[in-house]
Amino acid sequence: MKLVECVPNFSEGRNRSVLDRIVESISSVKGVKILDVEMDENHNRSVVSFSVPLENAVEAAFHGIKSASELIDMTRHTGEHPRFGASDVVPFVPLEETTLKDCVALAKELGKKVGEELRIPVYMYGEAALLERRRNLEDIRSKSFQFEELRHSIGEETWKPDFGPQEIGKAGATIIGARNYLIAYNVNLNTQDISTGRKIAKALRAKDGGFTFVKALAFYLEDRKLVQISMNLTNFQKTPIHRVFELVKLEAARYGISVVESEIVGLVPLEALVESSRFFLQLNRFSTDQVLEKKLMK
Amino acid sequence: MKLVECVPNFSEGRNRSVLDRIVESISSVKGVKILDVEMDENHNRSVVSFSVPLENAVEAAFHGIKSASELIDMTRHTGEHPRFGASDVVPFVPLEETTLKDCVALAKELGKKVGEELRIPVYMYGEAALLERRRNLEDIRSKSFQFEELRHSIGEETWKPDFGPQEIGKAGATIIGARNYLIAYNVNLNTQDISTGRKIAKALRAKDGGFTFVKALAFYLEDRKLVQISMNLTNFQKTPIHRVFELVKLEAARYGISVVESEIVGLVPLEALVESSRFFLQLNRFSTDQVLEKKLMK
Repeated sequence: MKLVECVPNFSEGRNRSVLDRIVESISSVKGVKILDVEMDENHNRSVVSFSVPLENAVEAAFHGIKSASELIDMTRHTGEHPRFGASDVVPFVPLEETTLKDCVALAKELGKKVGEELRIPVYMYGEAALLERRRNLEDIRSKSFQFEELRHSIGEETWKPDFGPQEIGKAGATIIGARNYLIAYNVNLNTQDISTGRKIAKALRAKDGGFTFVKALAFYLEDRKLVQISMNLTNFQKTPIHRVFELVKLEAARYGISVVESEIVGLVPLEALVESSRFFLQLNRFSTDQVLEKKLMK
Repeated sequence: MKLVECVPNFSEGRNRSVLDRIVESISSVKGVKILDVEMDENHNRSVVSFSVPLENAVEAAFHGIKSASELIDMTRHTGEHPRFGASDVVPFVPLEETTLKDCVALAKELGKKVGEELRIPVYMYGEAALLERRRNLEDIRSKSFQFEELRHSIGEETWKPDFGPQEIGKAGATIIGARNYLIAYNVNLNTQDISTGRKIAKALRAKDGGFTFVKALAFYLEDRKLVQISMNLTNFQKTPIHRVFELVKLEAARYGISVVESEIVGLVPLEALVESSRFFLQLNRFSTDQVLEKKLMK
């Protein structure tokens, strides 16, 4: 059975009962497993994560978007995080044997359905982008251009949605797409020198010549009195955790700094850990199917 | 749901249909998942591995033993491997949250039931041993003392079974017990010098001062033209893979030898790989519950 993860962001982070009803409407679809629900009061936004068999994925996401469009009124919504609509961003993420291509197909099917049946303007992003300029989420919706700005500008050619009407109702617009699994990965260093931290982060991240699938920033953690290299690994198959860890260690060593520990925030696919064991233990012919729990799942 | 693995060894490695019927009788019990079936023609012996919820474990193992006692006649059995009975050795192994203590209780319940209801003499071994001298499997049944010898000696006080009659029928005797998960782990070295391999194996294994839960031997692999350190890790929680690997590497280095690769034979519990990632990536606060697939299983 091919599984997919869907991580819809809803513009409601304060009213628990509203969110519960949205989550219930998603859960009502066969095979859905809710993996995580994070409500953020300041952002007034929630991130729901669920797994679902490929064949029910569009239906489950559609249920959530429909429910949110009925329960959330964007004309009354405030919150710190940039947002476009009641269902703000809805990415599909491949799990296990599912491919990114599968997810692109799901995203397009969902985008069309949401545009036509719910009459909500839809912008396609990530691997499912129909226009190259909409590939990066930040190039669509940002701090300076969100729901309020879109309401005024949607009539312009540049804001013509990929699906649905070229007009904004109370549910706002929805950004739908497909992306790889994202691992939030931090490495803590035994230094308080943020400027050295920034040099290390720079060596790591794609846009400054580092690894293609790494976004990295350095932070000083006041409570722990140390510098943290905080990263998003956007394709753990092509830029695996162990290589990132080893490069942080190597770059830190030139300043006499060592690694205190590293941390994975939230969930991580089994394959990412197996790959690190393969590297460090030189288990070059090890298959993920040798993990007992994989057999128990079947 | 607490799960347990059961790894019965049956004295039939040539007649596929006999083994199929035994496996079917096990599979008929609710919740059983057959993980592996290995038939060995030379040994005339098969190893079946299945997982089962704790509450059905005794029933499932009993079904297998009963079926084997009806289908296998030890008085006509030949094979290279030492053996005592139709169902030769039947260990329970804890999986995930299950404890070794749980498995000891299962083994005792099964031993009593097999002795009383099937009238088969039962010897308890491993953590479930009732007599200290029967803790090690090799101290019960060996190359020089197996079914044929037991038939003659079972009347002696020293061979009084822990359960069941002090006499041998066509099904022979069965050795039942509980043990930890065993990982078969090999490290291949870029040397052809077996005597150096033996020194390294010696540094590793418990009985020569090495790690408590490691059994190690050195072999020369003719086809690959290299020396392999072949190990059984009998308690991966207390003697984890990474520590064994690092010690092999360290001891090899003193002779100018390096590691070509390592290999895990068969299945390995997720926790064992997670622990190695924890060590190498310094993921000191990482929990196995952060593995996505664990969430998907629930």
